[in-house]
Amino acid sequence: MTGAGEDQKETGRVEAFSDGVFAIAITLLILDVKVPKPDEAAAAGGLIAALSRQWPMYLAYLTSFATILVMWVNHHKMFGHIHRTTDPFLFLNGLLLLFVTFVPFPTALVAEHLRLPHARVAAAVYAATYVAIAIAFNLLWGYAAKGHRLLSAHAKAAEVSAITRQYRTGPALYLAALGLAFFSAEASFGLCLLLAIYWSLTGSLPRLFGDPASRM
Amino acid sequence: MTGAGEDQKETGRVEAFSDGVFAIAITLLILDVKVPKPDEAAAAGGLIAALSRQWPMYLAYLTSFATILVMWVNHHKMFGHIHRTTDPFLFLNGLLLLFVTFVPFPTALVAEHLRLPHARVAAAVYAATYVAIAIAFNLLWGYAAKGHRLLSAHAKAAEVSAITRQYRTGPALYLAALGLAFFSAEASFGLCLLLAIYWSLTGSLPRLFGDPASRM
Amino acid sequence: MTGAGEDQKETGRVEAFSDGVFAIAITLLILDVKVPKPDEAAAAGGLIAALSRQWPMYLAYLTSFATILVMWVNHHKMFGHIHRTTDPFLFLNGLLLLFVTFVPFPTALVAEHLRLPHARVAAAVYAATYVAIAIAFNLLWGYAAKGHRLLSAHAKAAEVSAITRQYRTGPALYLAALGLAFFSAEASFGLCLLLAIYWSLTGSLPRLFGDPASRM
Amino acid sequence: MTGAGEDQKETGRVEAFSDGVFAIAITLLILDVKVPKPDEAAAAGGLIAALSRQWPMYLAYLTSFATILVMWVNHHKMFGHIHRTTDPFLFLNGLLLLFVTFVPFPTALVAEHLRLPHARVAAAVYAATYVAIAIAFNLLWGYAAKGHRLLSAHAKAAEVSAITRQYRTGPALYLAALGLAFFSAEASFGLCLLLAIYWSLTGSLPRLFGDPASRM
Repeated sequence: MTGAGEDQKETGRVEAFSDGVFAIAITLLILDVKVPKPDEAAAAGGLIAALSRQWPMYLAYLTSFATILVMWVNHHKMFGHIHRTTDPFLFLNGLLLLFVTFVPFPTALVAEHLRLPHARVAAAVYAATYVAIAIAFNLLWGYAAKGHRLLSAHAKAAEVSAITRQYRTGPALYLAALGLAFFSAEASFGLCLLLAIYWSLTGSLPRLFGDPASRM
Repeated sequence: MTGAGEDQKETGRVEAFSDGVFAIAITLLILDVKVPKPDEAAAAGGLIAALSRQWPMYLAYLTSFATILVMWVNHHKMFGHIHRTTDPFLFLNGLLLLFVTFVPFPTALVAEHLRLPHARVAAAVYAATYVAIAIAFNLLWGYAAKGHRLLSAHAKAAEVSAITRQYRTGPALYLAALGLAFFSAEASFGLCLLLAIYWSLTGSLPRLFGDPASRM
Repeated sequence: MTGAGEDQKETGRVEAFSDGVFAIAITLLILDVKVPKPDEAAAAGGLIAALSRQWPMYLAYLTSFATILVMWVNHHKMFGHIHRTTDPFLFLNGLLLLFVTFVPFPTALVAEHLRLPHARVAAAVYAATYVAIAIAFNLLWGYAAKGHRLLSAHAKAAEVSAITRQYRTGPALYLAALGLAFFSAEASFGLCLLLAIYWSLTGSLPRLFGDPASRM
Repeated sequence: MTGAGEDQKETGRVEAFSDGVFAIAITLLILDVKVPKPDEAAAAGGLIAALSRQWPMYLAYLTSFATILVMWVNHHKMFGHIHRTTDPFLFLNGLLLLFVTFVPFPTALVAEHLRLPHARVAAAVYAATYVAIAIAFNLLWGYAAKGHRLLSAHAKAAEVSAITRQYRTGPALYLAALGLAFFSAEASFGLCLLLAIYWSLTGSLPRLFGDPASRM
């Protein structure tokens, strides 16, 4: 009984710390959406034109925001099944957070270079960051789920396997985006954007008008 | 019983994450209030003059701070009635947070351009952001309240309808501010400022000296 | 019983949001401690010299960090006595947070201008910010404590009066710092620094080697 | 019973505030990893070359991230044994947080100057910051553990002594890194990097494939 109480407290603080990191990383993204200076507005022929030219900034902001949000929802769900922590688990979670906090950098890189000669390099760094995050997610879940190591006694084997299968598609899809970057920056970045939107909506759309009883 | 416990935990983490995002977005606003450089102070004829010239920065800071605070209080109250979460709810909440984290950008835009030729564009972007937030609030609450989907068993129908009615005024008022921006940036931004102050005070003024028993 | 549970939840989220704002404001301060660029290091005759010249930045960082920390501890203690919230209380707390999030701006102002001709203006803005915070603290506590409005049933009248008396010294001392700024920036800023250190240590020094049973 | 409940609440809010500060400090590090501008990419002969030249930025980011994460894990574990707070404890914790929030500054200093003439000064400031943090950790734990002052009734003397011994190595190792900085910036910074990686892995590696029952 006391043990169960301690477990809950441990997990609670890891979740709170992770939530903090996710929340800050997602909010810092806006710092790279720059306000056109008065002379830039004049040079572009008006503020509307100057704002329009910045479309890669908005797209990069949207893509990274949606992706981090999907990741947070996944993290949230994963921890719904996990009731204990160990040192290796804390550090695998730290590895995941290392890559999540890194996201503002490739986001700014894509925002700056998407219409410039070196766009493909920027898109490759962007996709590679998500490859790393997707792999870290698999490592974290794989460690927690192996032999039911850290899972709640209530976690069902079928659910656990379903999550394991679902996580495996992440690295493959982002590796595809990374591969695409060698041919077309737009295609690579576009795939990242589509994945973020697809996962945002498939997590929610089917149920948006659906059965109120189907809770997560 | 176990189910009720899990519910509370779910809502708790969504609230914690949202609180983090609101708290960070509201605190990042100060990064766009710039310190006058020594040469700017000299050019303006002193630091007092240089600081005074920056009044749009302070007003934009105040307006956005008060607006985000009102939104946070609303979010806080809304979640007082909500006891469960679903995937669509998490993503509608994410949509709301997308627009909330965006606020520092139009704030900086207004701060920079309010006294310049393109002020009306800046004011329109500012008001449009709040239109988007107000609509997201209605979607989030509408989804949760529909058929009492995610509400606490204790939520009273009259209270729920009152909140629904109250939320509907938000998009209309900010659409008015958006419309005003085509005629006058000052009028549009001024309406946003007035709304923030009005909601801050009407939420509190009537009760500030009133009945201590009238709790929220 | 249900009411008591709801109370706790209300206070919990206000505290979490406030903690977030305090934590972010205190951590953002470091963004205004600038790294000397290579050419600045060369011009100053070395990196040590360039770093030494920046002493107002470190002092401003230390003063604002210690002051915000003292405020957070006070906020923390205050909420130890408060068990309920109302709309006016939430908005008075918001007013306090408005001034707390503003602190990085006068901090950067003092760091930039303390050795320059307009230092007294910078010091006055710095002290005035703390006057505002001290007044907001008194308003918040005064509202909560009036007639035991929002206090825990366990709060003792003697303790409550002691806190009320203690808070009253804040505005007076910072008004003195504000007055000093008209004569000497160093004296004004130095008083703010001394107050931060004094409160940090008197809260802790007497008990640092003292009775382990004297808990807060 | 009521007392125990209050204790838990006290510790909870200190932990939440500290978690917030750790989470923000660790996430702000990415703001100093700068995106190469288009002209820098052109001057370097391509974006890949421009990104490669920035290796000190990535190393500094990695080292500071891993170090702050190890510190957070230590803080987390320390608080697992602590059930009460006092004023001096809150302020010693504040001293620790003062140095933790300072980390982005020496990180940016090392990132900027590691390949430049004044690299040894930058490395010394970097190591000195960690000396300060390691000492603050010892003060905080020493205060809490002295005579079992703030510890849980369940904390075992052997565990407490083990933590005390473990913490003592921190200041010594970082003093060594500080000493090394007088001879070689690379050696000093390299030691900091190795320590961060070593502690990250030894906390986790031995158990990564080990006994699932050995929980933290």
